[in-house]
Amino acid sequence: MPLDRHKLRWNGWGWRDHPDDLSGREDVWAWLAGELRMPALLLTPALPLEDARLPPSQLTEQDRRVLARVVGAEHFRDDMYERAFHARGRSYHDLLRLRAGDLSDAPDAVVCPATTEQVLMLLAYASERGVAVVPYGGGTSVVGGVTGQSGGDRPSITIDLSRMHRVEHIDPDSQLVRAQAGICGPALEKALAEHRLTLGHFPQSFEFSTLGGWIAHRGAGQQSNRAGKAEDWLVAAELATPRGILREPVVPASAAGPQLTDLIAGSEGAFGIITSATVRVHSQAEAATGRAWLFRHFESGAAAIRDAVQNGVPATMLRLSDAEETRFQRTFSQIGHRRSLVDRAFAVLLNARRYTAACLLIARFEGSQDRVRWSKSAFSRIARAHGGFPLGRTPTERWQQSRFSTPYLRDPMLDRGVGIDTLETATTWSNLATLYRAVQSALETAIGQTGPRAGARGIVMCHVSHSYPDGASLYFTFIFPRALDDEIAQWQAIKHAASQAIVANGGTISHHHGVGQDHLPWMAQEKGALGIDVLRAVKRSLDPKNILNPGKLIP
Amino acid sequence: MPLDRHKLRWNGWGWRDHPDDLSGREDVWAWLAGELRMPALLLTPALPLEDARLPPSQLTEQDRRVLARVVGAEHFRDDMYERAFHARGRSYHDLLRLRAGDLSDAPDAVVCPATTEQVLMLLAYASERGVAVVPYGGGTSVVGGVTGQSGGDRPSITIDLSRMHRVEHIDPDSQLVRAQAGICGPALEKALAEHRLTLGHFPQSFEFSTLGGWIAHRGAGQQSNRAGKAEDWLVAAELATPRGILREPVVPASAAGPQLTDLIAGSEGAFGIITSATVRVHSQAEAATGRAWLFRHFESGAAAIRDAVQNGVPATMLRLSDAEETRFQRTFSQIGHRRSLVDRAFAVLLNARRYTAACLLIARFEGSQDRVRWSKSAFSRIARAHGGFPLGRTPTERWQQSRFSTPYLRDPMLDRGVGIDTLETATTWSNLATLYRAVQSALETAIGQTGPRAGARGIVMCHVSHSYPDGASLYFTFIFPRALDDEIAQWQAIKHAASQAIVANGGTISHHHGVGQDHLPWMAQEKGALGIDVLRAVKRSLDPKNILNPGKLIP
Repeated sequence: MPLDRHKLRWNGWGWRDHPDDLSGREDVWAWLAGELRMPALLLTPALPLEDARLPPSQLTEQDRRVLARVVGAEHFRDDMYERAFHARGRSYHDLLRLRAGDLSDAPDAVVCPATTEQVLMLLAYASERGVAVVPYGGGTSVVGGVTGQSGGDRPSITIDLSRMHRVEHIDPDSQLVRAQAGICGPALEKALAEHRLTLGHFPQSFEFSTLGGWIAHRGAGQQSNRAGKAEDWLVAAELATPRGILREPVVPASAAGPQLTDLIAGSEGAFGIITSATVRVHSQAEAATGRAWLFRHFESGAAAIRDAVQNGVPATMLRLSDAEETRFQRTFSQIGHRRSLVDRAFAVLLNARRYTAACLLIARFEGSQDRVRWSKSAFSRIARAHGGFPLGRTPTERWQQSRFSTPYLRDPMLDRGVGIDTLETATTWSNLATLYRAVQSALETAIGQTGPRAGARGIVMCHVSHSYPDGASLYFTFIFPRALDDEIAQWQAIKHAASQAIVANGGTISHHHGVGQDHLPWMAQEKGALGIDVLRAVKRSLDPKNILNPGKLIP
Repeated sequence: MPLDRHKLRWNGWGWRDHPDDLSGREDVWAWLAGELRMPALLLTPALPLEDARLPPSQLTEQDRRVLARVVGAEHFRDDMYERAFHARGRSYHDLLRLRAGDLSDAPDAVVCPATTEQVLMLLAYASERGVAVVPYGGGTSVVGGVTGQSGGDRPSITIDLSRMHRVEHIDPDSQLVRAQAGICGPALEKALAEHRLTLGHFPQSFEFSTLGGWIAHRGAGQQSNRAGKAEDWLVAAELATPRGILREPVVPASAAGPQLTDLIAGSEGAFGIITSATVRVHSQAEAATGRAWLFRHFESGAAAIRDAVQNGVPATMLRLSDAEETRFQRTFSQIGHRRSLVDRAFAVLLNARRYTAACLLIARFEGSQDRVRWSKSAFSRIARAHGGFPLGRTPTERWQQSRFSTPYLRDPMLDRGVGIDTLETATTWSNLATLYRAVQSALETAIGQTGPRAGARGIVMCHVSHSYPDGASLYFTFIFPRALDDEIAQWQAIKHAASQAIVANGGTISHHHGVGQDHLPWMAQEKGALGIDVLRAVKRSLDPKNILNPGKLIP
């Protein structure tokens, strides 16, 4: 069953009926205002849908008729809710626009095909008529990946893949699964669980985002140390383009020239629409356990992770928070609660001199009993060698319980004049500290300069959540007082400062969120002018009329 | 120091002064004749260089002058030896041509640049003048990857990268190394060994082939279970093209759109010339050990490998020979030798009823002491569960000693009327037995039909040498009596039959040898017409005058 979009928020995160854990928690809000040095929080509610401004549809009567005929009348939708729901993704920038009732980017219609053949027919028609097409999976992009074309002079439609949610083939011997691209995380994992298999791809958006979306933007899940990123577990994909199907055979590895599947991973709907994919899955773990450690500095925690991955110690997850994130999360979670034994031990440590800037590392180990035993003890030895203080299981278990609900904290903050956004990058181990400091400092400075008043302060925190033998990702979360007079400019200034710091200091503009509209200005610097030419050449060969996901990926 | 090409064979494998272990071994030759049902072997020596036919150079005096000025006069060569040496790679087909004195594909000159800037200048000049360019690393291609343009109406040069052999940067923290593309295996490993690092890429051509060549054809080494294929250990490459440099940042992973580095891996000189590359290396193993097992069938041995890789048991190498390869190699190695204890035990087993079609699996385990201990015992349990009989260390150690000298056996066979060639593919585990039987049967039939006389018999053997959670490679070696009246046609018929069997049965046309000229006819079937269009579009954007490695990779 596709998700019922009327049960989801059109201008916020996730389920409409998800409880607001921070409602009435004035102790938390007062603390947050203090952290941000705001005299008080503000009341900044979102505009209701009926007050939003939706431009008239540019589709002709014939367009409507043809499109509806391809997918069936009930799967062609141009009511206000569907157009508003699909107008944008779920980035901070998107929410600013949606909450202000700005639906200028909404598609003229939303079309929901059920088969690859229908997608091909839609693309052929759109190509012939010059209608822009935005492919849409779960719509959870945080980089402007599904924004409708803004101010275009041609009609645009969104092709929503939610009806394409079938698991098509399971090959347990080869641990391969082929599924339609519109399947979302829980449905896919449920089908795999019947065969005691799992893909193990758990992004924060897991409940809503789709197989096709993960591939299209090269996503990473919270257990990427085991499962890898989308481009790692992807074996073959079917890409429907205005010129037909692009597809390679399902083989474990090949030297038959460059693999075009590698071009599909990260193509963000600009080359075609991923309609199905064959992916590597693995057996459900026989055993699993979590452990946590406290390190004296970010550097020593990072060195422990580096040692582990370089020596092939197979953890499923290694997640290291910097001192600010460790402090913030600990304080936040303890407001109004009695402290547990772990929390008290944690506090004693934090107050001890050697751990004033302590960093929390949480780890998970999965697999056969003896693999878990071996990897846990091997990692313990490494952590100890880098001065890690063991904190037992609790911190990892707590994180595990709340891992999909954190994004729900954003909407109530936005309701109270508080902005929150995230960005991420990756670099080599030898450059990690340099890049970390550069981005941290760029964010702090930009937040200070763009705040609503002098002395405004942001909270800038960071964690390492994806690690490789040659480097790791850095994931920044930053919270700041909103400059209500020009919020878009505030966000752009902060984003610009951080992105410049990234490209000037050896980072990639994105490790797993993708390019979308938001990272487009830095693509030429990352790929080079010739690299952009190559991407353009590929696009021209697959999408000669330039209808696919305009304004994304390629400058 | 670049290899001295005058110490290498221009029309055969490797070093000129490498001893011919089979010289005077009439017992071996008699046995081989019997295996092939040939009444006697023949005398079929190669033509000496002075009797070969070399076409006149098509370069103008000005071409010579300009090219020599770019690289320095002593690095512009158009003498007969250099042109003959660079005329072709080292496939069976290449050797048939070279041994017959057919140098119709020889380049008009060989140019040896020392820097990326020189490569760019050469490409700019060649592009302007319409001179075809063949990039050349170690020249060990076995798929026609470096063949000069045959019968072209424009001049052609070979750009030999042997002077570009510097290690440019070592980053031990990130376990990354940047080196010029012309460095060959031993030089690279020697430089890394000074830092206790290793790339661990050991193809059979290791002594001669180059970093750039490995990347250009997506090569795999004998320890690929640890190091991965070239596309796995490649992090970033610098590609010199007629339109300038294509290069992406050195980061461990990225979601900044499709990674163009993935297009460089497998580009086979058709998009540009790889001038340097940054690659992932790892620490030299603290411990290493080998073990061997005998399985009752190919299927049960393959199942043991599958279990190991799917459960993350980290072997460095798992190599399973089929029954024919096991039999052939054992018999071959024992002719004229006293049998060791292992050989006698082996013989007893082979004669026992349950092992009549026994298959040898050799394995290596490397890493920290406890990792080796764990992985060896984990694999032993798996092998036992699939009926594997342990044979101790000797078979793996023997293989290890002779692993780079096997290719030297080909030339003496060719001198005696015997042909030998190899080909390889990969598929999913669930399809492995089907593909194995299809290719084996296609080879046997084609050899029977194309032999010099009725009743001629080929020896067709196979091993699995690269394995993944989702599948494995199949590597076939086949030996046959040469049809001396039309040897090229014989080879083409055999190659055609095997390749058809591969693409019709779910295999890739190559797992690690590449496309070159030999696999070109099957590329459209593997990539689809639209896929070929995409490759063409990429080529056009980087090589608009179509000068680079003509007749390879793209049909």
